[in-house]
Amino acid sequence: MRVLGIDPGLSRCGYGVVQNNPASSIQPGVDMISGGVIVTDHKDILGHRLSVFHGDFVSLLDDFSPDVVAIERILFRKNAKTAFGVGQAVGLVHMCCYQRGVPVVEYSAAEVKLAVAGHGSASKYQVQRMIQLLANLDEMPNPPDVADALALGMCHLANVSGGGALVLS
Amino acid sequence: MRVLGIDPGLSRCGYGVVQNNPASSIQPGVDMISGGVIVTDHKDILGHRLSVFHGDFVSLLDDFSPDVVAIERILFRKNAKTAFGVGQAVGLVHMCCYQRGVPVVEYSAAEVKLAVAGHGSASKYQVQRMIQLLANLDEMPNPPDVADALALGMCHLANVSGGGALVLS
Repeated sequence: MRVLGIDPGLSRCGYGVVQNNPASSIQPGVDMISGGVIVTDHKDILGHRLSVFHGDFVSLLDDFSPDVVAIERILFRKNAKTAFGVGQAVGLVHMCCYQRGVPVVEYSAAEVKLAVAGHGSASKYQVQRMIQLLANLDEMPNPPDVADALALGMCHLANVSGGGALVLS
Repeated sequence: MRVLGIDPGLSRCGYGVVQNNPASSIQPGVDMISGGVIVTDHKDILGHRLSVFHGDFVSLLDDFSPDVVAIERILFRKNAKTAFGVGQAVGLVHMCCYQRGVPVVEYSAAEVKLAVAGHGSASKYQVQRMIQLLANLDEMPNPPDVADALALGMCHLANVSGGGALVLS
């Protein structure tokens, strides 16, 4: 299964593509396929920023053909102005996925941290470090947006494999 | 000039198309071309709702070819959950308009009420009644979402004509 993880935002949106690989000699057998950040310029007009985001996100679906998209569930403790901007990015993700028949699943930040780092209040550094170990990377994924997006993807892989957490052998 | 006014929302989004008509014997010479509500079902999945909204809004641009879209400026006193949903609809309006080269202008609810009803704290009934008079309609526009959207369009017509308010002769 291939998962596209999305750490949503309009100025910066982290993405990470992961795939389970049961045949891997390195457990838990998760391959990182790609990771990066969709960036839009807050000085541009809103319509242009959303068009850029839309085009870039559709390209991710085209390039990586994920089986599912895992996105961070937004908690409404955030202030209304933040929710307004994040909502626009989240909305485009849901719309594009629906139009292409790709299911969208949501996980809270705490669920993701629990799955990849063993506890729901892990620091950003701990998440980055665990992603490096789980995906057997030479370096920690940077910036943290990418690590968070990869973690979302890995959280979903852990969830569908029946366990609630990924375990290093 | 033809203006598409938008009272944004994802469950209900009022729209109204107005056009100035200086040759009209009835002043201030504003014709109502169309009005209605885009409705999406809150029980549907988000991606489907946004696809419906997107398709319906693009159809409005196709059917009425507005010179400009006037949308209510969202104040961030609203709670985060409301802002999240409204933001998704507003984002699609901005994106679709940008992609078709239609400019978007924003007015606060108080600016709209001032332009059409003479004071910024007019009631919904007063706005509906003034829209009926200004556009010389047989009945008040209903539901109020439609009146609000028509009022947004008329507010923009008043603004570009140089006056801050529409005046009945």
